[in-house]
Amino acid sequence: MRQSQLFTKTVKELPKDEASYNAQALIRAGFVDKTGAGIYSYLPLGKRVLDKICQIIREEIDNIGGQEILMAALIPKENWQATDRWATFDALFRLSGNDQREYALGATHEEVVTPLAGKNIFSYKDLPFGVYQIQTKFRNEKRAKAGLLRGREFLMKDLYSFHVDEADLDAYYERVIQAYFKIFQRLGLGDNTYLTYASGGSFAKYSHEFQTLAEEGEDRIHVCNQCRVAVNQEIVAEQKTCPLCGNEKLAEMKAIEVGNIFKLGTKFSAPFEVKYKDAAGREQPVIMGCYGIGPSRALGTIVETYHDDRGIIWPASVAPFRAHLVSLNENQTADEIYDQLTSAGSEVLYDDRDLSAGEKFADADLIGCPYRVVVSKKTLSQDSVELKKRADDKGELVKIDALALKLK
Amino acid sequence: MRQSQLFTKTVKELPKDEASYNAQALIRAGFVDKTGAGIYSYLPLGKRVLDKICQIIREEIDNIGGQEILMAALIPKENWQATDRWATFDALFRLSGNDQREYALGATHEEVVTPLAGKNIFSYKDLPFGVYQIQTKFRNEKRAKAGLLRGREFLMKDLYSFHVDEADLDAYYERVIQAYFKIFQRLGLGDNTYLTYASGGSFAKYSHEFQTLAEEGEDRIHVCNQCRVAVNQEIVAEQKTCPLCGNEKLAEMKAIEVGNIFKLGTKFSAPFEVKYKDAAGREQPVIMGCYGIGPSRALGTIVETYHDDRGIIWPASVAPFRAHLVSLNENQTADEIYDQLTSAGSEVLYDDRDLSAGEKFADADLIGCPYRVVVSKKTLSQDSVELKKRADDKGELVKIDALALKLK
Repeated sequence: MRQSQLFTKTVKELPKDEASYNAQALIRAGFVDKTGAGIYSYLPLGKRVLDKICQIIREEIDNIGGQEILMAALIPKENWQATDRWATFDALFRLSGNDQREYALGATHEEVVTPLAGKNIFSYKDLPFGVYQIQTKFRNEKRAKAGLLRGREFLMKDLYSFHVDEADLDAYYERVIQAYFKIFQRLGLGDNTYLTYASGGSFAKYSHEFQTLAEEGEDRIHVCNQCRVAVNQEIVAEQKTCPLCGNEKLAEMKAIEVGNIFKLGTKFSAPFEVKYKDAAGREQPVIMGCYGIGPSRALGTIVETYHDDRGIIWPASVAPFRAHLVSLNENQTADEIYDQLTSAGSEVLYDDRDLSAGEKFADADLIGCPYRVVVSKKTLSQDSVELKKRADDKGELVKIDALALKLK
Repeated sequence: MRQSQLFTKTVKELPKDEASYNAQALIRAGFVDKTGAGIYSYLPLGKRVLDKICQIIREEIDNIGGQEILMAALIPKENWQATDRWATFDALFRLSGNDQREYALGATHEEVVTPLAGKNIFSYKDLPFGVYQIQTKFRNEKRAKAGLLRGREFLMKDLYSFHVDEADLDAYYERVIQAYFKIFQRLGLGDNTYLTYASGGSFAKYSHEFQTLAEEGEDRIHVCNQCRVAVNQEIVAEQKTCPLCGNEKLAEMKAIEVGNIFKLGTKFSAPFEVKYKDAAGREQPVIMGCYGIGPSRALGTIVETYHDDRGIIWPASVAPFRAHLVSLNENQTADEIYDQLTSAGSEVLYDDRDLSAGEKFADADLIGCPYRVVVSKKTLSQDSVELKKRADDKGELVKIDALALKLK
């Protein structure tokens, strides 16, 4: 992509009314725009990162047999009444239709997926299965000051699983935990993300959150450094030690909840009367689990985790472009290098604009592609470009012929 | 995909309260589920088709330089007030937030994209450009009886372009028309889709719709068979002849509006004060165009266009799977053929279920993959399978070794 053609520009001044670092950085670098408080639009750079995050999640959920669907966001009142959540779920956006019906926007989708699954479950042979979607969700938050970490509108991957019994759910739940760790590893968050024990609700002793350590985190967790698990703030009064090794010295840390998983049991299948016939022909209740990851929150968390005072430092797996090619008044040669790299399959943002070196370097640091490639009179005098990793202070001269391979 | 693992099943009885053919067929075949009136959820088969439609649209819009973004669905009241549409746009879903603010769900996005563009347009050098999104839209329809052709919630590709003057808009508008024809051609709708002259609103003499001839269409158009263009019902009283050749014998036909394009001029840039500085440093208003295609409506239109009394007949470009492999009690060999075909890159739905031949054939016809491949004792006696196109009555025996190549 030629930067002269890129829809958005970097923004010099800090956005007003934006308290969070992640949204400040993403707005300044031209990845997102603030449409309202807790409501963001994704610009070309941000959309590219979001797509990569979603694709990583999709691949790992497909790997455990998840089938992708897309459920409606406009959910009839009757569905919410079946589970009593129409009256009790504060964060629902409720609205009236010109058809004299009432709806709530999907803040979560148990009320849609459960009756839908019921239409397709007859016998034990139809179980188990997992279906998921990656979809915009809406939550009617009173306050929204954490940028992409807590939006009124945000993207969510929600997976739901259906089972004949608790043992089958337990086995699936473990597979999801492993898939989630792979996802966070691929997103660059693996080293700082802890499986965190949380209250289990009506069915299991614990549910689990995936918490990424971060100074801007709204949550507090209590980490066991021996087991690399944690206990969340809500249950630490009753669960004072590590649930795995009994370690009594848990370290309190700030963190961002990047995922959560629940054993739902029959909480939703019971009100929607979702049952199956077992091998003996007896009706049995279907056992459910649900598993969430917010791609837009993950994006915010990556920014909180990877930045310095000059801007964002994207992990290669989710970077909008692998390299930022910066031409310092050498567009003719830089054009050739750009064509060469893109032909070789590298994703390149090419700064072909008529600006000073200082402005271009500042933008490259702000946007944060993993590699910066500078083409100048000085580098060309040695048939080379300067290749610098975003996180490094110093670059190295690389022969033009060797560049494509070096960027692979 | 093994059909025994597929989340959804075909549905024997016709859905209640569903008047439209497209939704009836898609529900019976397990592509969509009805969440509410005019509100559908996309199941694994339907999601696959929708993704293919979106990808075709994306490729052709990218080809004319469109940059993909994703705007917010929750749009503050203030944005709609700026254009007076808060009070006048009947089809808005309006809602109140717990933050004491009011919002409307995006039924269209001029009120978001225009101020957003304004933040990135300074000089004539920043123009022209086009940005688009593929996103869920919401329209508060009084009635919704046309299935996927007119939903309360639906998918929309909306492209917006920004220009220095009308001449530049005109040139871009022509490029979009050509891109749209390519899209409808690739979707299998090319032969039945007409560029249709419609009222132009405040700026141009005409806007244009793309109308696909269909018995279930809600619109009536007046077709010039010489020029392959049409005039829509609303303006035919004043435009009684073909706008291109003057042909007076226009044929009245039923059609579905699958796309529409408008020259907006300054209708939205004026209220949001989106201006640029020309080469002489003078402030000028930005000229806009907008261009819509509904992928979910296109899906419904394809079903209306391609079916027989046994079910859907997907064009290859958007089929959920290229081939439906049907095993008649020969799963051992069929397993091998399935592995062979998928390894060769073919998308195959494999009916490995324990059902009768009649039930399997009925499902294959209903689901409508372009090719049916039958593996039976009889075909295997000749080292063959029976390969039949969905639209044909008779198949042919094909040697197993030659099948993968034949399906390419």
